[in-house]
Amino acid sequence: MYQLPLPLPFTEEEYRSRVKKVQEKMAEKGMDVLLITDPSNLYFLTGYDAESYYVDQVLVVDINDEMPTFIGRYMDAFTGVARMTWLKEDHIFAYPDNYVQNPEKHPMDWISSKLKELGFGKKTIGIEIKADYITPYAWERYKANLTEAKLVDGSLTVNYVRSVKSDKEIEYMMKAGKISERMMLTFYETMAPGVRLCDVAAAVEAAAFSGTPEFGGECCASNMMFPRGIMGGAPHIQWDDQPLPENITIYLENAGVYKRYHAPFSRTLCLGQPPKGFIEISKIMIEGIETVMDHVKPGITTGELADIFGAVYEKHGVEKEARIGYTTGIGFFPSWGERIISIRSIDKTVLQPNMTFHLIPGMYLDQYGLSISQAFCVTETGAKKLYDIPYDVYVK
Amino acid sequence: MYQLPLPLPFTEEEYRSRVKKVQEKMAEKGMDVLLITDPSNLYFLTGYDAESYYVDQVLVVDINDEMPTFIGRYMDAFTGVARMTWLKEDHIFAYPDNYVQNPEKHPMDWISSKLKELGFGKKTIGIEIKADYITPYAWERYKANLTEAKLVDGSLTVNYVRSVKSDKEIEYMMKAGKISERMMLTFYETMAPGVRLCDVAAAVEAAAFSGTPEFGGECCASNMMFPRGIMGGAPHIQWDDQPLPENITIYLENAGVYKRYHAPFSRTLCLGQPPKGFIEISKIMIEGIETVMDHVKPGITTGELADIFGAVYEKHGVEKEARIGYTTGIGFFPSWGERIISIRSIDKTVLQPNMTFHLIPGMYLDQYGLSISQAFCVTETGAKKLYDIPYDVYVK
Repeated sequence: MYQLPLPLPFTEEEYRSRVKKVQEKMAEKGMDVLLITDPSNLYFLTGYDAESYYVDQVLVVDINDEMPTFIGRYMDAFTGVARMTWLKEDHIFAYPDNYVQNPEKHPMDWISSKLKELGFGKKTIGIEIKADYITPYAWERYKANLTEAKLVDGSLTVNYVRSVKSDKEIEYMMKAGKISERMMLTFYETMAPGVRLCDVAAAVEAAAFSGTPEFGGECCASNMMFPRGIMGGAPHIQWDDQPLPENITIYLENAGVYKRYHAPFSRTLCLGQPPKGFIEISKIMIEGIETVMDHVKPGITTGELADIFGAVYEKHGVEKEARIGYTTGIGFFPSWGERIISIRSIDKTVLQPNMTFHLIPGMYLDQYGLSISQAFCVTETGAKKLYDIPYDVYVK
Repeated sequence: MYQLPLPLPFTEEEYRSRVKKVQEKMAEKGMDVLLITDPSNLYFLTGYDAESYYVDQVLVVDINDEMPTFIGRYMDAFTGVARMTWLKEDHIFAYPDNYVQNPEKHPMDWISSKLKELGFGKKTIGIEIKADYITPYAWERYKANLTEAKLVDGSLTVNYVRSVKSDKEIEYMMKAGKISERMMLTFYETMAPGVRLCDVAAAVEAAAFSGTPEFGGECCASNMMFPRGIMGGAPHIQWDDQPLPENITIYLENAGVYKRYHAPFSRTLCLGQPPKGFIEISKIMIEGIETVMDHVKPGITTGELADIFGAVYEKHGVEKEARIGYTTGIGFFPSWGERIISIRSIDKTVLQPNMTFHLIPGMYLDQYGLSISQAFCVTETGAKKLYDIPYDVYVK
């Protein structure tokens, strides 16, 4: 009906094969239907890339249908979904706008009726109860409406399918990495005493959106984490609008993004004289990162990588509690992580080719933060970096 | 213990009075304790502004304690929360990092134990079950762990307190509006045939972050909605990286942000010759907006405003289903709306001074989108615009 202004990011064949893999997982877990609300999973299966997930919407994967069905708000369903995805219009349904944020009725009431109408009222239905953008109340509405169905936890089913990428996905992540390189260099170039930190953030973000002359970039699944000095001791903090002093440490964590695929990175910079011990600690962190990178290959586990890193820190007498990495790829707010696999001792995931990780052993200390990271793809023989910028703290 | 690098956005007195208002609402609803997960509500009561809400964290408002208690991840609690908020360290608790995204255990298990330890195990506990960033699974963990407590729906309790702003909050929103003005002008200036849309987005976003020479800007609670031509018929779509043609319509929806307070806006631009009927429809939309703006004053209801707008459209024979506005203020992803009050016929909220709205009667049609909006504050006598840029479609 509509002419798409841009081609789909992947072939319809690739989308169909993704759905098939999800259906195989559903069969293993005994699900007839899977209701998807995680925007990353929805995008992965359809190509739908929009900011509409702040209202209720769901993608229905029926184990007996090659094409999923979208149910959402009218203004999104027959416009964005119809124009951006491979779904046919007979697989798109919309609830009326007066269900939006209305205390008297809830979109899940309408959606539940539609599910019954589609023949799913007595089926085993998986629901992503560990995902964002489905509220506990929405879950209660499903339970109240779908009394004859068996509702089960369908969380993370699609996330595991996402964790091993196709070659086309790796190509997109390498492009995202090219954008990440430009962001890091812009960060290094624009930092100077007297410059307001918000103006540095502006330059870095502009680099992220402009990308390269060959392809542009996109919004990242997390705001820029960019705290100076003592605030750097806290992760997940943004910038401020004050001029930079002569002496300060700062790290930047963000990601270049292409077709919603992320290449997250973190680098640290010192203006003026680094604090006592700062460079020494950074060298231990870099030794840990390089040692892990040397050991990445199919067959090794995430737990083993964490222990290899831990041994470096132990040798130097440094403590570190948090996980040091996780798988990454598609990202929608609030995270570019896939929420399933972590690089830490208790995680025993076996690495496979075309898995993609963000290795980030940040240190958040009393007087400053130190964050250096590397995103990489597992290859047949080792690790391929998504971007190539020296790890060293940039002293300026 | 730590020295804050920047002062709190509001006085401790203002935070205390906010907590008191929330406690009054809790008393009305019979809640002893309210567990807050909505990042906007958490920021409103504490000043905590960080990207940590992708993991479980909760602010506990005890009806008998003037100071709320934060429980979250270790790397955030004793760094960001301790350094950015008015909470004392004896009101901060943290769960160990191995609770993060671990299939074997859940942060709400640890948090539930802590709540019992704090004496809330048999209380009536309100939970924000209609908010983002609390999953259905987290809710189920509360239910499984807090078997002797009475768990009730505490959703939107804080949102209603937020809906009427203090003068300081209005001051911040006016500053956000100054940033919005710069963003709109940048949009108008940079659009031209041959320019890639991603480079326009980069310039607009840089204007948002750099703000004004006096104060900088921040990340917005929604990615830029910036779809060209036929994609403009779908709301909530971002930009692309292709060069602009000689003739195209496009709208931009985004917000200037200061101290997390938003001044959302939308404006529409035509490169070259506008499509047939485009300007005519825009004039009807503008007539609707101006008529509503003329009627804004304390005492009128949101439903009446919607009907006033509807009458203008009816006069011209134009149909419009969706709501035409909502209250706005603090925003964290994915929305700058407060989720409680809509400008639509069925909503009967009485306007009060210092309420702040985003009036946005977008039209998403087959061949293009048209979006013009105005954010305003209700004053004693009428409406004060948060920014002042002509409504007209900018033809270039």
